[in-house]
Amino acid sequence: MKIKSISGNAAVSLKRSISSGTEEQRKTVLAIIDEVKKSGDAAVAAFTKRFDGAEVSAPHISEQEIKEAYGMLKQDDIETLKSAIHNIKEYHERQLSSSWFYYRKDGTMLGQKITPLDSAGVYVPGGTAAYPSSVLMNVIPALVAGVGRIVIASPPGKDGRLSPGVLVAAAELGVEEIYKMGGAQAIAALAYGTETIAPVDKITGPGNIYVALAKREVFGQVDIDMIAGPSEIAVLADQTANPREIAADLLSQAEHDAMASSVLVTDSRILAEAVRKEVDQQLERLPRKEIARRSIENHGCIYVAETLADAVSAINELAPEHLEILTEQPEALLGKIKHAGAIFLGRYSSEPVGDYFAGPNHVLPTNGTAKFSSPLGVSDFQKRSSIISYSREAFEANAGKIAAFARMEGLEAHARAIESRNREED
Amino acid sequence: MKIKSISGNAAVSLKRSISSGTEEQRKTVLAIIDEVKKSGDAAVAAFTKRFDGAEVSAPHISEQEIKEAYGMLKQDDIETLKSAIHNIKEYHERQLSSSWFYYRKDGTMLGQKITPLDSAGVYVPGGTAAYPSSVLMNVIPALVAGVGRIVIASPPGKDGRLSPGVLVAAAELGVEEIYKMGGAQAIAALAYGTETIAPVDKITGPGNIYVALAKREVFGQVDIDMIAGPSEIAVLADQTANPREIAADLLSQAEHDAMASSVLVTDSRILAEAVRKEVDQQLERLPRKEIARRSIENHGCIYVAETLADAVSAINELAPEHLEILTEQPEALLGKIKHAGAIFLGRYSSEPVGDYFAGPNHVLPTNGTAKFSSPLGVSDFQKRSSIISYSREAFEANAGKIAAFARMEGLEAHARAIESRNREED
Repeated sequence: MKIKSISGNAAVSLKRSISSGTEEQRKTVLAIIDEVKKSGDAAVAAFTKRFDGAEVSAPHISEQEIKEAYGMLKQDDIETLKSAIHNIKEYHERQLSSSWFYYRKDGTMLGQKITPLDSAGVYVPGGTAAYPSSVLMNVIPALVAGVGRIVIASPPGKDGRLSPGVLVAAAELGVEEIYKMGGAQAIAALAYGTETIAPVDKITGPGNIYVALAKREVFGQVDIDMIAGPSEIAVLADQTANPREIAADLLSQAEHDAMASSVLVTDSRILAEAVRKEVDQQLERLPRKEIARRSIENHGCIYVAETLADAVSAINELAPEHLEILTEQPEALLGKIKHAGAIFLGRYSSEPVGDYFAGPNHVLPTNGTAKFSSPLGVSDFQKRSSIISYSREAFEANAGKIAAFARMEGLEAHARAIESRNREED
Repeated sequence: MKIKSISGNAAVSLKRSISSGTEEQRKTVLAIIDEVKKSGDAAVAAFTKRFDGAEVSAPHISEQEIKEAYGMLKQDDIETLKSAIHNIKEYHERQLSSSWFYYRKDGTMLGQKITPLDSAGVYVPGGTAAYPSSVLMNVIPALVAGVGRIVIASPPGKDGRLSPGVLVAAAELGVEEIYKMGGAQAIAALAYGTETIAPVDKITGPGNIYVALAKREVFGQVDIDMIAGPSEIAVLADQTANPREIAADLLSQAEHDAMASSVLVTDSRILAEAVRKEVDQQLERLPRKEIARRSIENHGCIYVAETLADAVSAINELAPEHLEILTEQPEALLGKIKHAGAIFLGRYSSEPVGDYFAGPNHVLPTNGTAKFSSPLGVSDFQKRSSIISYSREAFEANAGKIAAFARMEGLEAHARAIESRNREED
């Protein structure tokens, strides 16, 4: 793992050039979407056979399949899922905001009405990336928001089945509409509907390049969440931190993906050297060491800053997805951190604590976008409507100004709409 | 204006197929962005000369130009601007949300930190569409959110000047960084920066197809607001409403754009006929009657529903940008309206009241996207960071579950990061 010295406003960046797909892939996705719009269920079944190698005549998961999934999970794992659900619900319930209104002295009422989306679709990848935590982190905010209809789509294995962990997580949350379909065909079916699947208003959840491209294409027809890049962690530490723990946390991101990025920013060269040594040693013992090694070599870095203040500046420049603060007084730095998706304070807040369990969402802005984006949350499944109820008194006092403003913008019919209320005959 | 009868779950839609630009236009935009990235200020100046026909050596607006703009505006219009600013600020201040945190019994602290964006750029179109209200509606939410640096870009006329209304609106809001530049070159300069213009984190504001395409291209590098479609109004009215006022309001949308859509939904055939007659008569007297006529003929419609309940269902299906409720008891229907960008209650809440003056934002979701999108607001210029501070007690009680969850997902390094804290030697 390389070590770099930085000082002052050194240029540091987490930005990796992430593939946005080839023209060929985009064409494939457009063709799949067209086919699903045209032939509905039959198109979805044909693509499932072609891409997933599975014969799926009825994509809707049955009660029997849910029962079997429960049988395949350890009781302890089911209990763990339940604890995680409890924590994640508790946190997201705090995100709920209320409709509000206020009256002006002239009797005018102004307000903002919060309404949940009618429906949401959650995409869950298949294979080894079929994470129950993806189900929890996407479904729970929608559930708390009050979304009436929540749908899950996930590609089946060759045996025509879905991951039991995914099914149990969905069942524990009360989601009954689960479809065995994946890829661009699933996104198209969710956005445009088929004979048996009603369309949804928003699609969230991670996926491969075809899923990401399909989400981009259907955006506007439905809403989508962000297109997530590979995962990242930045650790901000001083000489009081434990190098073994830091190395373990850096490697937990690195094992996700060769494009993942793990960064340490510290004011202690001794710590930097110790962490580098620990990373080398621990890496060797990891089952996914080839992935983790490529990530650390290509996208990992230890920055040694002259002062802790410089280190904080560097963190704000990086705007990492995950930030761990492992200093003597982590809370004291919280006010200085402007840009990070999730902030983990102190040694007991190891990043995996937040991945599944603590409560906050694990769908976070990546690749420096924490400068302007937020974690997935309840507000992503609700929307606001403005309310204006002008009183007669307010109208009469301001009609002249409003009409004048319209004419200043050259919009005569706007002015006349106001003046149509002012006639004496009323 | 056509009249259609509907009943029950009749299919009604505001969706118009809106141009997303040609391949040729997209290539032009990509070339402009590349050129600005490469040659910075020189490229911007060259494009300004080519597209706007103006020689602009220093694009930054001077104090002298602001002073001249004030001299060109009527004192009354300046007062109107000030009143509008007061109202819009008051409303948006109600949208502010606070950071929060809570403690669990085991000592764990969880929270959410709200941080304004560092910087935002507002695009204001030129020519006859250089609306001071665009400045107010985009800048005020950013200002209230606490954005540190707000920049305006607007294309100059052939004389190298900007609209005095735009300049005065900007000056009244304290925006000092105003650039005479437009089109894709302005979006590129704001997203990537030049020698003299620092990049911003988010770009909002309306624009032509080149501006819209450029915003799409730079999305990810910076955040953008929605790509707005043409304007819409839906009026929900019963027999108590005034046909002359409804017609005037429908026409106020229609004058914006031949693609604008004006719709009345009513349970009264008598009202429907009367509104049709009024629209025909008032249309003839409008300065922008050619635009308004095309809008009304191609995208206007009066729907007559069997019951008021059916009319409400139709409104929720339409999900209009603007909704006026002109019934005997408009407030009584508010709870039944699920999808609308802004809701105007009663005859004194004519839609233009909200366009400039009342307080809520006029940047609203169009083309049916009110089903999942919200008006522009303070939250668009802030972002959330999750905070996790796990206590030792909580960690020790849950470390086993967290590690088990990681292993259930096949991520061994995640489990080991947790277990690295559990060693006895600590």
